[in-house]
Amino acid sequence: METITLHRIGILRTPFTRINDMPIQPGGASGVRGTLVLDPAYITGLQDLDGFSHIILIYLFHLAGQPELMVVPFLDQHPHGVFATRAPKRPNPIGLSIVRLISITENILTLENIDMLDGSPVLDIKPYVPDFDQPDDVRTGWLSERSPGVATMRSDDRFTGE
Amino acid sequence: METITLHRIGILRTPFTRINDMPIQPGGASGVRGTLVLDPAYITGLQDLDGFSHIILIYLFHLAGQPELMVVPFLDQHPHGVFATRAPKRPNPIGLSIVRLISITENILTLENIDMLDGSPVLDIKPYVPDFDQPDDVRTGWLSERSPGVATMRSDDRFTGE
Repeated sequence: METITLHRIGILRTPFTRINDMPIQPGGASGVRGTLVLDPAYITGLQDLDGFSHIILIYLFHLAGQPELMVVPFLDQHPHGVFATRAPKRPNPIGLSIVRLISITENILTLENIDMLDGSPVLDIKPYVPDFDQPDDVRTGWLSERSPGVATMRSDDRFTGE
Repeated sequence: METITLHRIGILRTPFTRINDMPIQPGGASGVRGTLVLDPAYITGLQDLDGFSHIILIYLFHLAGQPELMVVPFLDQHPHGVFATRAPKRPNPIGLSIVRLISITENILTLENIDMLDGSPVLDIKPYVPDFDQPDDVRTGWLSERSPGVATMRSDDRFTGE
């Protein structure tokens, strides 16, 4: 199995210190603010990012337990293949969230609609661009009747490492 | 610097074998097909993914050169901070593309609107869900007058490792 070595470029500071009882997607974290503390070595890379209203964060689910190939996600009572869900117990525990960028001051990004755990290691920051990231004619399979619940659903402890 | 070890869960097979002269985003790869060959160990994780029309692929820019914090992206003549672009020479060379899922046969996913290099190592597959992934009131900074060019723009060799 080919391994890939990456490194933490920053860390997320959020109000959520435990994997249970937190929003399960940015849609459930409306108005919640947090910060991304970037390693100061990368400040130059932030130039012109402040023109974008939203950024794509790629980070680690650092408290997720061992990977599982079938999971019962928060939004359903039935098991699904992990790649058909956004559950954290993935073969590579990578998280993806699109959040609102409020401001940038030196190496600190203030973010809104944060659904990540405090302390999550950040791997990459990308500008959100509808022309690249917003496809047409979307179908959402098992989630098509479930996702309205995302605004009110809270996590429980099913994906913790304990 | 904290390192993070991940592993390749599959590999992309696409028509693009060189980093120059390829589409620069899925919007420029309309109709281009390729496959994701998943490690057979993970087949179970694909269950129910076929109900989704689009998937988010997280992969490596495996032929990108050394990271640069300021880059001149394909869509502009001016340098921008790398985190304000989708250029491959990033501190962690992680790529993100939203592509159409045509079919799944065992461990082979047939995909459309492929803008990745042949041989790109895949890190994660997620279902694309507009309720999670499609924010409102989006501003796109320096790209706001450039992104119409994405459908016709081709890459050159500025981000190769050579």
